[in-house]
Amino acid sequence: MEAIKSFKELIDYLTNGSTGSRKKIAVANAVDMHSLEAVMHAVHNGVVEAYLVGDEATIKNKLEFDFEPSEFVHVVNVPDPLEATKEAVRMVKEGECDILMKGMVNTDVILRVILDKEKGLLPKGRVLTYNSALNIPGYHKLLFFTDPAVIPVPTKEQRVEMIKYCLDTAKKFGVTHPKVALIHATEKANPKIPFMQDYLDIIEMWKRGEFGECIIDGPMDTFIALDKERGAIKNVPTPVLGDADILIFPDFASANCFYKGLVSFAGAGMAGLLQGTEKPVVLTSRSDDAELKFYSICMAAMLA
Amino acid sequence: MEAIKSFKELIDYLTNGSTGSRKKIAVANAVDMHSLEAVMHAVHNGVVEAYLVGDEATIKNKLEFDFEPSEFVHVVNVPDPLEATKEAVRMVKEGECDILMKGMVNTDVILRVILDKEKGLLPKGRVLTYNSALNIPGYHKLLFFTDPAVIPVPTKEQRVEMIKYCLDTAKKFGVTHPKVALIHATEKANPKIPFMQDYLDIIEMWKRGEFGECIIDGPMDTFIALDKERGAIKNVPTPVLGDADILIFPDFASANCFYKGLVSFAGAGMAGLLQGTEKPVVLTSRSDDAELKFYSICMAAMLA
Repeated sequence: MEAIKSFKELIDYLTNGSTGSRKKIAVANAVDMHSLEAVMHAVHNGVVEAYLVGDEATIKNKLEFDFEPSEFVHVVNVPDPLEATKEAVRMVKEGECDILMKGMVNTDVILRVILDKEKGLLPKGRVLTYNSALNIPGYHKLLFFTDPAVIPVPTKEQRVEMIKYCLDTAKKFGVTHPKVALIHATEKANPKIPFMQDYLDIIEMWKRGEFGECIIDGPMDTFIALDKERGAIKNVPTPVLGDADILIFPDFASANCFYKGLVSFAGAGMAGLLQGTEKPVVLTSRSDDAELKFYSICMAAMLA
Repeated sequence: MEAIKSFKELIDYLTNGSTGSRKKIAVANAVDMHSLEAVMHAVHNGVVEAYLVGDEATIKNKLEFDFEPSEFVHVVNVPDPLEATKEAVRMVKEGECDILMKGMVNTDVILRVILDKEKGLLPKGRVLTYNSALNIPGYHKLLFFTDPAVIPVPTKEQRVEMIKYCLDTAKKFGVTHPKVALIHATEKANPKIPFMQDYLDIIEMWKRGEFGECIIDGPMDTFIALDKERGAIKNVPTPVLGDADILIFPDFASANCFYKGLVSFAGAGMAGLLQGTEKPVVLTSRSDDAELKFYSICMAAMLA
């Protein structure tokens, strides 16, 4: 496949196939308009087949008044929100669905169900983190990055797993040789900065081939990673220059500040998924807009 | 005065006065085209009167071939780069000039001269940091923020000083009641995050009136601080909502990632100065473009 370079190309890719390629998404307590809007948009665009778990009367009422009917929507009647969440997780765990999505349930509640050792979706020893895709007008391809939301300050072991998740994601989007930038404020590997040794160790691991087909370089700033013109002035020799596919941030504050600025002022589109789980999990928050939720469903469908 | 809301308004403000209001800028080893371009642009726009310290023959040669002559340019012949730096610092320290600017001299060299206990520009006990202004198309006013460059992870005492510098800067730009946002990935004051206690202490200090006329609130993300629409969805009651004048970042990595993304992809203009010194210091780096250097000179002229 050709690499998918934008959310538009992603949607085209997902909707150009036959309806047989729709992934099945289970929505935990799908009784709120926010989730329903995003899921129904994905249904009507041919991206998913939806299993809406929750109070049947409430869901059917909302469906009837606000959305076009579709043969790809099913309501699973579980009125209690916690039980609905458990049922949605079970459907994904047992292979009845390919993707889990949070509806009207608190993040800590659904996370507890996902993290349940027996019935949950996180295999033992896996790192739970968050991986995002950013569609920035002015950048020539999709940009994957981690982690703006879950791990405040990753350990080295977590960073290694986070990079592997991002590489896996990029490869599923058709990027055969992803370029990974380890982001910092400057290209100077100041040993006083706590995460710098992690970065240097990771580059050694990469040189030994432990990350497979990819390029990993850094530390570097986002000018060097993403901006050929401004990056070149620094005269730092790197094959990543202005062409990164993946940004690894030092911590979730820097990742968060980076992407939110671009969403607010550069017209960037954003998608994100929990990583580490057996199947993709769309865990957008109440404050995310419908567009972000829709793109996140598309990203999940690509990875499922 | 009316608050200055953009770099265009800043330049208009600086150039509308009589030539008597030109600030005097001493450029340390002004022999490189990068600094000369920015300084001469500021001279020709009526912003500064320049004292170019360095090898006279080299400077005059460059001036003659590349720039229109001006009565507001003076060459001070000190051929040795370190001596030229010391002379420029002396001129500022002794009041002959109002602003110091780095020319072709390494940052660590000029910093050593600035930090010299006797002949330097940093009063004892003052915090040396960096304060920037960002002109973001799509944001309705100038945004001041700190620190993208000097202090990797500030202590609480440093954060307090950094806020005071930013308040002072904003007030000199005519913002009488600055709104300060303490930035984090979320609005949740998670006590596990190392800087969170600093933020909470700072808000208590603000409530006791220790920061004067201003509003300080947080933690909050940049959606709440800068983006009325996306911020409002979160339903966090704050007078800062979508209207921050000043962003205080947790560390220099997050500040750096924030502004560089906006410079690369949102057409943002940037200016920055060392803070804590007796007089404004323009300490842009080789990799900064001429526009950034010019805006930084303008910002310095405003504060001098």
